[in-house]
Amino acid sequence: VAVIGASADPLKIGGRPLQYLRLYGYRGRVVPVNPNRQEVQALQCVPHLSLEDPMDLAIVAAPAAAAGEAVSDCLRAGCKAIILFSAGFAELDDAGRQAQQHLARAASDAGIALLGPNCLGIINAHTRLAATFTTALENSQLPVGAFSYMGQSGALGAYWIEKAVSAGLGISKWITTGNEAQVSLADALWYLAEDSHTRLIGAYVEDLKQPESFLEAAQVALRAGKTILAIKSGRSEGGRRAVAAHTGADAGSDAYYQSLLDESGITRVASLTEMIDTARLLLSRTPPRHVQRLAVVTVSGGAGALICDAAHDAGLSVPDLPAEVTRELDALLPKFVLRRNPIDVTGAIVSNTPMLGEVLVTLARSDAFDSIVLFLGLMGSIQEGLISAVTRAQKVGKPLILIWMGATPESRHAIEALGIPVFTEIPSTLSILAKATSSRARPICAK
Amino acid sequence: VAVIGASADPLKIGGRPLQYLRLYGYRGRVVPVNPNRQEVQALQCVPHLSLEDPMDLAIVAAPAAAAGEAVSDCLRAGCKAIILFSAGFAELDDAGRQAQQHLARAASDAGIALLGPNCLGIINAHTRLAATFTTALENSQLPVGAFSYMGQSGALGAYWIEKAVSAGLGISKWITTGNEAQVSLADALWYLAEDSHTRLIGAYVEDLKQPESFLEAAQVALRAGKTILAIKSGRSEGGRRAVAAHTGADAGSDAYYQSLLDESGITRVASLTEMIDTARLLLSRTPPRHVQRLAVVTVSGGAGALICDAAHDAGLSVPDLPAEVTRELDALLPKFVLRRNPIDVTGAIVSNTPMLGEVLVTLARSDAFDSIVLFLGLMGSIQEGLISAVTRAQKVGKPLILIWMGATPESRHAIEALGIPVFTEIPSTLSILAKATSSRARPICAK
Repeated sequence: VAVIGASADPLKIGGRPLQYLRLYGYRGRVVPVNPNRQEVQALQCVPHLSLEDPMDLAIVAAPAAAAGEAVSDCLRAGCKAIILFSAGFAELDDAGRQAQQHLARAASDAGIALLGPNCLGIINAHTRLAATFTTALENSQLPVGAFSYMGQSGALGAYWIEKAVSAGLGISKWITTGNEAQVSLADALWYLAEDSHTRLIGAYVEDLKQPESFLEAAQVALRAGKTILAIKSGRSEGGRRAVAAHTGADAGSDAYYQSLLDESGITRVASLTEMIDTARLLLSRTPPRHVQRLAVVTVSGGAGALICDAAHDAGLSVPDLPAEVTRELDALLPKFVLRRNPIDVTGAIVSNTPMLGEVLVTLARSDAFDSIVLFLGLMGSIQEGLISAVTRAQKVGKPLILIWMGATPESRHAIEALGIPVFTEIPSTLSILAKATSSRARPICAK
Repeated sequence: VAVIGASADPLKIGGRPLQYLRLYGYRGRVVPVNPNRQEVQALQCVPHLSLEDPMDLAIVAAPAAAAGEAVSDCLRAGCKAIILFSAGFAELDDAGRQAQQHLARAASDAGIALLGPNCLGIINAHTRLAATFTTALENSQLPVGAFSYMGQSGALGAYWIEKAVSAGLGISKWITTGNEAQVSLADALWYLAEDSHTRLIGAYVEDLKQPESFLEAAQVALRAGKTILAIKSGRSEGGRRAVAAHTGADAGSDAYYQSLLDESGITRVASLTEMIDTARLLLSRTPPRHVQRLAVVTVSGGAGALICDAAHDAGLSVPDLPAEVTRELDALLPKFVLRRNPIDVTGAIVSNTPMLGEVLVTLARSDAFDSIVLFLGLMGSIQEGLISAVTRAQKVGKPLILIWMGATPESRHAIEALGIPVFTEIPSTLSILAKATSSRARPICAK
C-alpha cells in the first residue's frame, strides 16, 4: 500500500492511514511516497511510484489541485487500485465535476479501480487494512465480525463504526464511496454480496448511479442469506439540495428509490440508531427469522398495553394463549395474575423469581408463538434471578426479545454476554423486530 | 402520615413507605399502625387510628380482603386523605369492581380523598413526601425540580423517575392513580395545573373517567404556561384488552382520545424516551419557544441531508441564508465550504475550531432563524474547542439544539452543565423539537 501525500503528523489526513495501518496490524508493506524525505512516521519513503515496484493499492491524500497528477503517477506505475481522499470535485462546482470525470475515464481506460474522490477510504477488518483517515479509528478496537458498511458518507460511516463497536458488534468491511467517479455503491454491494465474512450490510445511500447493477447485487446478497439495511437521504427538497452539496449526487425521487429498495428486498431504516439496533437483533445468538405471533411477558400492565399497541403498529400479533398453555400456566402463576397475553406477572416475581423462568420456558415451548417479548423494569435487587430466568428460557432456542427499562449496567452486560441484546424502549424495539424479519420473509424473485 | 399494614421489612410493600419517608427526609410525623407491635422500623406504632390523633394521610398497604375494613377505620378516625395500594379490585373481576365502588362511595360520602386502589401512591419532592412503594426510589436521589408525572401506571411512573433522574431533570410531583375509584387523572391535572412548582407535566393515560374536567384543567395548565406531554395506551384492540386487565379501564376509541388531546393542547408522545427527551429540551436553559426556521450547521454533509429530511418530516423549515449572513460567513468560512443552509463546516474545524463559534454566533444573531441545530460527530480530540464554541453561541440567547453522535461522556457532561441537552440521533431530535414547541404555539380557546 502506497500513501501519496504521506504526512509525518499522524493526525493529518495524509498521516492517519500510515498510523492506522500499523496500529491495527496490517501485515502488508506500507510505503509513504515523498520526494523530500527519507522516512515518514518511521517508514521508509520512496520518492515516487515506479513500475519496478508496483503497488496493490495507492492512497492519494493530496489536495484536489495535485490529485490529477498523483492519479496519473499511479496509473503509470501500474497500481491496481486507487483511493482518492481529496475533496473539491463534483460537490464543489462544474470545473470540479469535469476534473472528476477526467480522472475516472483515465482510471477506467487503464482498467484500474478508483474509489472516491471525496471519500474516507475503506477498512477490511479481517486483513487489518485500515486505508482511511476517519477519526473513528482513533480509539476504537476494530473487532472482527460479520457486519459491513457501505455508503457515500464517510462521516456517517465513522459514526457507524463508533456505534457498532460500542454495541459489541464485530466488523467485516467498511467502504465509503464519496463522489463515486468510478466505483459505486453497486460495485460495493457486489463485493459484499460475495464476501464470505459479511452476513449483514448497512448502507447509507444518497443516490444510486447504477441502479440495475445494484438491484442484481442485492438479489445475490439476499439469496446468500444476507440482510441489507439502508438509510436513504434526500427524501425532501432540502435534503436533495444538501445531498448535491455533499457528493454532487442527484438524490432523485423518493418514491422511485422506495420502490427500488422494496424490489431489492432491502429494509429501509430511519437512522443509524435503528440500523445498529436491528443489527444487534439479527446478529444475536437466536435471531428472529419469522415473527408474527408474539408471547408477551411483562412486569407492568401499562407496559403490556404499550407493547400491544406497538406490536399492532408494527404489524405483529399478540394472539390469545392456547388452552394447553393456560393449563400449564395455572400451575405456575399466582391467582391474581390474569391468564392473558400479555401476561403481567407483576411484582410477584420479586418474591418468586424462578416462576418467571418457568413461565418463559412454557411459552417458548408452545408452537403458538414465534418469539417471546419480555419486558422488565428496574428490579436491580433481583437481577441475578432475572438473568437466570432469561438463561433458562434461551435454552429452548426460541427468539427472546428483551426490553429492560432501567437495567443496571451489570445486568445488561450479563445478558448481552448470553448473546441476547437488551433494548430499553417499547415502540422502537417492536418496530425493529418487524423490520429485522421483513426482508427475510420476502420471496426473492429470480431475474 | 399513618401507614396501615406497616411492615418491619423495608423491602415489603408495607415497609417501603416507612423507609422512603425517612430516607428522603420527610419532616412530618410518620406513624405505623400495627396492634401487635410497639415499634416498626424504629418508629413507634399505634394499635389503630383514632379521632383524637387525626392523620392528614393514611397509606393502606393491606391485601384487598382487608382493605375495606382499613378504609372504614380511616374514615372513622377522621383521616383527610387515603392512598390505597391494594390490588385485586376492578382489574380482577366484577366482585372486585363492586368492592371498589363501595369504597369510593364511602370515601366520597365522608368528603375524603381516596387515591387508588391498585396504585403506587404519590411523591412530593419538595416536601419529601415519598408516600409510595415504588422500587425506583431504592437508589435514586429525588432531585427537586419542575417536572411532574401523573398516570394510571405506577410501574411506568417508576421508569419515568429513573429516566428523569438519569437525565438530570428535577422532579416536582408524582401521582399514580391506579384504578381511580375516586381520584382521577383529571383531579391530578387540576392539582398540577395550579402547583406553582410544576412547569412540565408528563402523563400516562389509559382512559379518562372525567374528560370534561380533564379538558378544563388542561386549559388552566396551558394558560399558566405549562406544557403537558402524554402517552395514551390502548390504541389497538390488543392494547385495549391489556388496559382492561391492568386497571379495569376502558381505553375507548383512539380517535376520540386523539381529538380530546388535541383540543386540550396536549402533546402526544410515543414513548417514555420521547417524553424525557422532550422534557430535556423544554427544561433547558434556552428552550425553543417557536420553531419554524432552522439554521443547520454540521460537520458531515450526509448528516446535513438527513437533518433536512427529518426537519421536513417534522414540519420545520431550513430556509436559505440571507445575503447579509452569507456576507458575514464569507469572512469566516474556507473557500471550499458552500454558503448554503445546512452549512457543512467539514473537518476544517479540526484545524480551526474557533471558526465554528464565529459561524454559530453569526447565525444566532440573524433574525432569519428561530433556532440553530448543530450536528457534531466524534471529534473527541478537539472537544474543548467545540465546547467553547457552543458556549459562545449560547450567550447570544437563541435556542441551540445539539446533536452530537459519539460524544465522549466528558463532552456530554460539560455541555449539559451549560444547560444544553446533548442529543445523539437525528430524526428523533427533530421530531422532539417540533413536538416541544407545538403545544405552545397552539392558541388556547377560552371556554
